Amino acid sequence: MTATPSGGDGRTAVLLLSCPDRVGLVARLAHFIYERGGNILDLDEHVDVEERHFFLRVSWSLDRFSIPASDLGEAFAPLAREFGASWKIRLSGSRDRTAIFVSKYDHCLREILWRHSLGEFNIDIPLIVSNHPDLGPLAAQHGIPFHVVPVTADTKPDAERRQIDLCEEAGVDTIVLARYMQVLSPQFTVRYPGRIINIHHSFLPAFIGGNPYRQAYQRGVKIIGATSHYVTDDLDEGPIIEQDIIRISHRDTLDDLVRRGRDLERLVLARALRLHSEHRILVNGRKTVIFD
Amino acid sequence: MTATPSGGDGRTAVLLLSCPDRVGLVARLAHFIYERGGNILDLDEHVDVEERHFFLRVSWSLDRFSIPASDLGEAFAPLAREFGASWKIRLSGSRDRTAIFVSKYDHCLREILWRHSLGEFNIDIPLIVSNHPDLGPLAAQHGIPFHVVPVTADTKPDAERRQIDLCEEAGVDTIVLARYMQVLSPQFTVRYPGRIINIHHSFLPAFIGGNPYRQAYQRGVKIIGATSHYVTDDLDEGPIIEQDIIRISHRDTLDDLVRRGRDLERLVLARALRLHSEHRILVNGRKTVIFD
Amino acid sequence: MTATPSGGDGRTAVLLLSCPDRVGLVARLAHFIYERGGNILDLDEHVDVEERHFFLRVSWSLDRFSIPASDLGEAFAPLAREFGASWKIRLSGSRDRTAIFVSKYDHCLREILWRHSLGEFNIDIPLIVSNHPDLGPLAAQHGIPFHVVPVTADTKPDAERRQIDLCEEAGVDTIVLARYMQVLSPQFTVRYPGRIINIHHSFLPAFIGGNPYRQAYQRGVKIIGATSHYVTDDLDEGPIIEQDIIRISHRDTLDDLVRRGRDLERLVLARALRLHSEHRILVNGRKTVIFD
Amino acid sequence: MTATPSGGDGRTAVLLLSCPDRVGLVARLAHFIYERGGNILDLDEHVDVEERHFFLRVSWSLDRFSIPASDLGEAFAPLAREFGASWKIRLSGSRDRTAIFVSKYDHCLREILWRHSLGEFNIDIPLIVSNHPDLGPLAAQHGIPFHVVPVTADTKPDAERRQIDLCEEAGVDTIVLARYMQVLSPQFTVRYPGRIINIHHSFLPAFIGGNPYRQAYQRGVKIIGATSHYVTDDLDEGPIIEQDIIRISHRDTLDDLVRRGRDLERLVLARALRLHSEHRILVNGRKTVIFD
Repeated sequence: MTATPSGGDGRTAVLLLSCPDRVGLVARLAHFIYERGGNILDLDEHVDVEERHFFLRVSWSLDRFSIPASDLGEAFAPLAREFGASWKIRLSGSRDRTAIFVSKYDHCLREILWRHSLGEFNIDIPLIVSNHPDLGPLAAQHGIPFHVVPVTADTKPDAERRQIDLCEEAGVDTIVLARYMQVLSPQFTVRYPGRIINIHHSFLPAFIGGNPYRQAYQRGVKIIGATSHYVTDDLDEGPIIEQDIIRISHRDTLDDLVRRGRDLERLVLARALRLHSEHRILVNGRKTVIFD
Repeated sequence: MTATPSGGDGRTAVLLLSCPDRVGLVARLAHFIYERGGNILDLDEHVDVEERHFFLRVSWSLDRFSIPASDLGEAFAPLAREFGASWKIRLSGSRDRTAIFVSKYDHCLREILWRHSLGEFNIDIPLIVSNHPDLGPLAAQHGIPFHVVPVTADTKPDAERRQIDLCEEAGVDTIVLARYMQVLSPQFTVRYPGRIINIHHSFLPAFIGGNPYRQAYQRGVKIIGATSHYVTDDLDEGPIIEQDIIRISHRDTLDDLVRRGRDLERLVLARALRLHSEHRILVNGRKTVIFD
Repeated sequence: MTATPSGGDGRTAVLLLSCPDRVGLVARLAHFIYERGGNILDLDEHVDVEERHFFLRVSWSLDRFSIPASDLGEAFAPLAREFGASWKIRLSGSRDRTAIFVSKYDHCLREILWRHSLGEFNIDIPLIVSNHPDLGPLAAQHGIPFHVVPVTADTKPDAERRQIDLCEEAGVDTIVLARYMQVLSPQFTVRYPGRIINIHHSFLPAFIGGNPYRQAYQRGVKIIGATSHYVTDDLDEGPIIEQDIIRISHRDTLDDLVRRGRDLERLVLARALRLHSEHRILVNGRKTVIFD
Repeated sequence: MTATPSGGDGRTAVLLLSCPDRVGLVARLAHFIYERGGNILDLDEHVDVEERHFFLRVSWSLDRFSIPASDLGEAFAPLAREFGASWKIRLSGSRDRTAIFVSKYDHCLREILWRHSLGEFNIDIPLIVSNHPDLGPLAAQHGIPFHVVPVTADTKPDAERRQIDLCEEAGVDTIVLARYMQVLSPQFTVRYPGRIINIHHSFLPAFIGGNPYRQAYQRGVKIIGATSHYVTDDLDEGPIIEQDIIRISHRDTLDDLVRRGRDLERLVLARALRLHSEHRILVNGRKTVIFD
């Protein structure tokens, strides 16, 4: 969806920013880019009118930019300070370092690895972590280090410490829970706010918790869904990134729901990861702003 | 969707039946029709394998049927008894007498009345009941008697008795709650099992109860829905007939949700009413079997 | 979707603009608004990279704007000239004057009039024109002048002249063909470029021309659609505004397709009209840019 | 979706049948099964009222069937003859031998092989045929023989003879064209009527022929689709099995269409193959009857 620049070496920057709303934000931010020779390729903004909060994503070409990309953060900081903004700037070429956590199901991991091989995600995958050895061969096929960290109720604190060490050694920015069947503790999630992406196999907030397909089957719904969301310390309550659904009927058995739901899970998770890796998401309390 | 018969006066019968599963049900039911000269136009069946229960809908032409339609029930009763079946037979030409309950919102009523004028429903509408006078003129436009029965916490029992009297005098088979904003008491609902159709403005079981659009807005979902279901004495828990959804985004305000949800509500309710009026629905505990 | 302004009398302006792409467009346009005290409420832009063409929609609050709204066009003209832009500015409070053309089908007209009564469109409807008298009573119910202009092959030029006169007398900006069953001549359409909205009852470009439901039925498609587009002098080839679809099956007869398609037609046309009336559409050759 | 039988060794039979419509077909077919001790698990029928043609799918348990499964065809033949029917009977345990033809794109092949490894298709895959060597390693990963048969305009007749030999040696029932980029000649297709499944990357009949994504991009449609159909000697005109769509916008580049379309192609083809492998499809002239 991003326009490709029209010349030069094609380097671009993306700014994601949120701050209290006030007059002139768009103009001043656009001016900051323009006066340094940047050409805006894509600008999208949103105002949460109830909360009076402003959200913006802008990407621009660095081809004739007057300052080095490496100085961009420092140059922007005073403006951000004036606005009281949360912000980050990403340069093209930089890629999120993304760890994938799995258990035994392969469909979400397989989908991510296949798309990754096609270049659909702007990420590197330095490691895959699992509490079971089953998906090791799939990781090996793609040449990605695979770490088995078993988790039991007793060993959970130690296991999480080990997982965090692995992620930190690998310089991980983002963690994707690709049907990872363990609940992360608040001690873990607090370290990666807005940076852990989960897929839940229901249309949240329906069927929170365990075995949502069985819940859906027993309730007799006519549509099932899947939901990708950021993980917070409140189970299945994090900000929703993406959802999708399919119709079912009384003919569908519980096995059919599981089978058909797999397609939803892997597509919804892949879309969420793509949005995240392109820096198109801002968290707004319990919600997300998605600039697609 | 039903095939129209190929000659004669085109009279048809529909049998809806459910009973414990056993060998030979389809064959013996088909034979019952065949040996009396009936030509099956449409047959659909379903077995709930967990519950070992059998569900069937069959329609047939009465053109060369050897017994009068009026004797059909009596002729079928012994077989139904043998099978331990719940069943009903409807003849073409008979039309469900359907009362519509409303409050102030007009969109669902308007949709039903317009479709009814086009002949989309196989029903008669002998009366509309409301706890507010607002929609009287719309009822009058269609020449349908409109009864205002105000409801307060204190007067509810009396009001419901009045509503029941109105429905009984009018020989009502089915009641449609077209955004009727009062909860019916168990004393009311028990009289019309599987015969009161409600529209709830959320994707059940998400956002049960009051103000589901506000709940959806605050939760930040990316999809909203509507659900039509039979009313039982358990609020928003009755068997689901039909659901549908639309995608929303962070740009949609609460007012947008309400506006866009209206389209869902009226279409989903209309589809449910059509399925019911064509005798395509069998209730299976908390679920429905829909033969479409 | 539009943010409501945070104070003052709530007057806003919307600028729609397209021009050859160049550096600094967003910054300079945002600055034009900012330096006059306008607060940008919503800004969306798009670059057609192949054509190197720029498209923008921006709305802003006039609460503290330093020049009178009536002088806005004149103030903006020099910048537009410099950019070689096509543009228009609309002030809140101004409403597109919209004529509706119909024949005998009522569903699209009914949908528009009902939504209009709820305030969903930012338009006035000064007249309804038909080649048949059938929908006169519906127009009368809403108090809208209804003009019957019969059309035959022989009288078409005269009839169109009469229609144009009616529209010009009423100061019409936009014409909606709500299942109007006559093809407008190029002499007519050339007068309203990007201002005549049609609904075609197929998923264009499939089933161009007459009787698309029959074509779809005979082809055995599993999905049918509807398409709303601007009318050009090339039948069913104008820029597409909105499309939608529903699934069908072998059980659906031709009558079912017509019945189910009606729901698509009226919803798709209503969405297109809403987008147009909110000035969210820019035409890009044979395509549209939709800022929603 | 098929009910599993309640005891015995769980063997079942499926009959697919079509014939001119007449009175008593369902009853006599059900009786044929019942009088031999078969228990009907699933029965679905359809009458094409215009063509007066009857279509049926029925599956039943062979647990207490009074004749050996191997004699079933012979036992049924007289009834089929009387009805003038086309028919086939499949026993559980038999699996369609399915060849997959590919060129260079991997997404459809990958999807089929992954689902096959999960047991989603009731097929064997004895060989994969390609006009390019690229996907050999993927075939090898799954242990499936991979045959490269290059095709040029000159060598096409020879190449097709080689392909047919390969399929005949392997006893192939069904051929899946999983983005195989060559048009099969009528000499080829006539040998496999209703047994070659193709995926076309557009919403047929829109964008027939080459480069449909480019066509869709240039036309400015708001929705793109994919279509799976049986191959006849009329390009892209064979009976449609399954279609699906996704919404796009002006922001989507041609590359985005190709990327997003891949998801449609593989899911739609997989669904078509599953329906075919479960013997749920009957061809009705240019259309299909799908018993799902």
